[in-house]
Amino acid sequence: MMEYICSECGARYGEDALVWRCTCGGLLGLPPPRAFDAAQVDVSEPGLWRYAAALPTIPAARRIRIGETMTPLSGSGCLGLPAHFKLESLLPTGSYKDRGSAVLVSKLHALGLTEILEDSSGNAGASIAAYAAASGMRCTIYAPAANSPGKLAQIRAYGARLVPIPGDRAAVAAAAMAAAQSAFYASHIWLPPFVAGVATMGFEIWEQLGRQAPDTITMPAGHGSVLLGLWRAFTALRRAGVIGQLPRLYAVQSAAFPALAEAWEAGAGAPVPTVRGTTIAEGIACRVPLRGKAALSALRATGGAAFTVTEAEIQGAWARLAGGGYYVEPSAAVAGAGFLKLCERGVLDASGVHVVILTGSGLKAPAV
Amino acid sequence: MMEYICSECGARYGEDALVWRCTCGGLLGLPPPRAFDAAQVDVSEPGLWRYAAALPTIPAARRIRIGETMTPLSGSGCLGLPAHFKLESLLPTGSYKDRGSAVLVSKLHALGLTEILEDSSGNAGASIAAYAAASGMRCTIYAPAANSPGKLAQIRAYGARLVPIPGDRAAVAAAAMAAAQSAFYASHIWLPPFVAGVATMGFEIWEQLGRQAPDTITMPAGHGSVLLGLWRAFTALRRAGVIGQLPRLYAVQSAAFPALAEAWEAGAGAPVPTVRGTTIAEGIACRVPLRGKAALSALRATGGAAFTVTEAEIQGAWARLAGGGYYVEPSAAVAGAGFLKLCERGVLDASGVHVVILTGSGLKAPAV
Repeated sequence: MMEYICSECGARYGEDALVWRCTCGGLLGLPPPRAFDAAQVDVSEPGLWRYAAALPTIPAARRIRIGETMTPLSGSGCLGLPAHFKLESLLPTGSYKDRGSAVLVSKLHALGLTEILEDSSGNAGASIAAYAAASGMRCTIYAPAANSPGKLAQIRAYGARLVPIPGDRAAVAAAAMAAAQSAFYASHIWLPPFVAGVATMGFEIWEQLGRQAPDTITMPAGHGSVLLGLWRAFTALRRAGVIGQLPRLYAVQSAAFPALAEAWEAGAGAPVPTVRGTTIAEGIACRVPLRGKAALSALRATGGAAFTVTEAEIQGAWARLAGGGYYVEPSAAVAGAGFLKLCERGVLDASGVHVVILTGSGLKAPAV
Repeated sequence: MMEYICSECGARYGEDALVWRCTCGGLLGLPPPRAFDAAQVDVSEPGLWRYAAALPTIPAARRIRIGETMTPLSGSGCLGLPAHFKLESLLPTGSYKDRGSAVLVSKLHALGLTEILEDSSGNAGASIAAYAAASGMRCTIYAPAANSPGKLAQIRAYGARLVPIPGDRAAVAAAAMAAAQSAFYASHIWLPPFVAGVATMGFEIWEQLGRQAPDTITMPAGHGSVLLGLWRAFTALRRAGVIGQLPRLYAVQSAAFPALAEAWEAGAGAPVPTVRGTTIAEGIACRVPLRGKAALSALRATGGAAFTVTEAEIQGAWARLAGGGYYVEPSAAVAGAGFLKLCERGVLDASGVHVVILTGSGLKAPAV
């Protein structure tokens, strides 16, 4: 059993408690990762359930499955330096969110819930809706009315009730929280099992590289769940002594939503709410990362960094990725733009093993 | 080395000949499949190149890769009877066409071509464009101007020149053939390596079922490349003696484009051009299946059948699939509609092992 710990008052909750935040209002977090080694991998599983030993307890029969396999780690030179692209766009609903949703929704379903609600910029909503549909749970998704129509159509297709909310992402979250009296608030941002699920991405990379850690991993960052998931996985592997050191994690943000990057530059321990424009990277249009303190702490632990890229840089990376055969959404191209910037600055060189996380499919939101 | 054989005059061409049809104008076909068994699987490869021994010769270093892994075979009861869904929607460009394109484009690139053209209803065009991009070849795609905007945007994203053609699919093919003086016509319909690549779908199903053949496989059918690919794979396995009998193959068409189904009903040896309406299943809106004779012959060999489903049945199956967590394009939902019809008619029962091929992603062309 895993315990969740309040980041404000330190209260502890068992993993079967049906709460989405502490009674004090604080954010619940996961305990520090336990050691994880090759003997704990369930090799009979093709995808993320291989790492069930590192996840909240969910009986095998209650795991909701819609086709999760290990996502490809595809070598390419289309961004200049040789890199391994982790194609999270090829998860069942087209984004990395399926790792978190598979674990979160399976857990909530196993606990007996029959109805959930969630708010999302689009990808998490589609993902939660898909797993809810497969489980038979009723599902309501609050999403920004102005988001990509393709993402909204996908949410509706899964049979979820879609509630489009005018205004920004914060307005959407507020509407969902207000509704959380009527159904359980299955927030991918607030609920710890989601981050535990995202950690499976790191375990897969380790297995796919022949049980080695890469030197660096570059990823887009909004709330920072990819960053925290990867930090968890590689920390668990290092605790087990199966890797020597953590990969340096690079969290890339849009210059329009730079809260993490500005806190990093300033050496601050926590981000402050910041908006400096608009972005085509709608998946990371995040005014304040809810797990910002933990994200900054993870960056420090790995020797990585947070920084921003411009809209033009995102567009440029998007075109280079597509020109190499990788069609991703703008939010995913942010990682490509960050990788290009790290190469230009000489931070990365060809002697290292570099991974770039491509978080979502181009079919979800074309850049043009 | 493989030889290609003219279906009209019997002339033979080596697999390195740069021709897209016989000098007599006839369609080139593959030779009968050779025996294939487990010892020939290259287990170091994660995806379709595992079956390179059954493909035209392409040196390992010339294989173009953009993240092909074994697609999931996901168990579900959302269509009533338990079935295994083969999620071809999770190949790199979102459709099964990547199997054919990976092999065809790799072969043409290895033969030294630097420029290709192709015509497509959308999915094959996007797929060929992606592999051409990854190879560095220039690429032009002719596509129906009225096709799903998402598919056309995808083709453009890969850097291909897109030529939208008003009119039906035949008009598009005619325009492409007329242009085939200036660049090699890399037709997914005319060129035998494409079908050889699609056969890898069958080998994967066999491996994923623990080296067993299923009892039935239900699939959408336009030109019939999925049908022919599966027939090839399972025939090769039976020749090696590793499976007892071929799975019964069920080819499902839209009632608007029923050429194969009507020929099957009539007991004819070849389909005649037929259009009886319009369909949301744009990927199989095929007036006459170019490999129709071979397709009908394959159906007979397996004890399967061809039949049609209505637009309402396609919509209904689409909704049931999405309601189970599987978001597919209408052309793929055709297989689901066919499976439902086979169950209703009592052709299938719960004692059998049934596979349904879901050929393309719902993100490509929503049904609503």
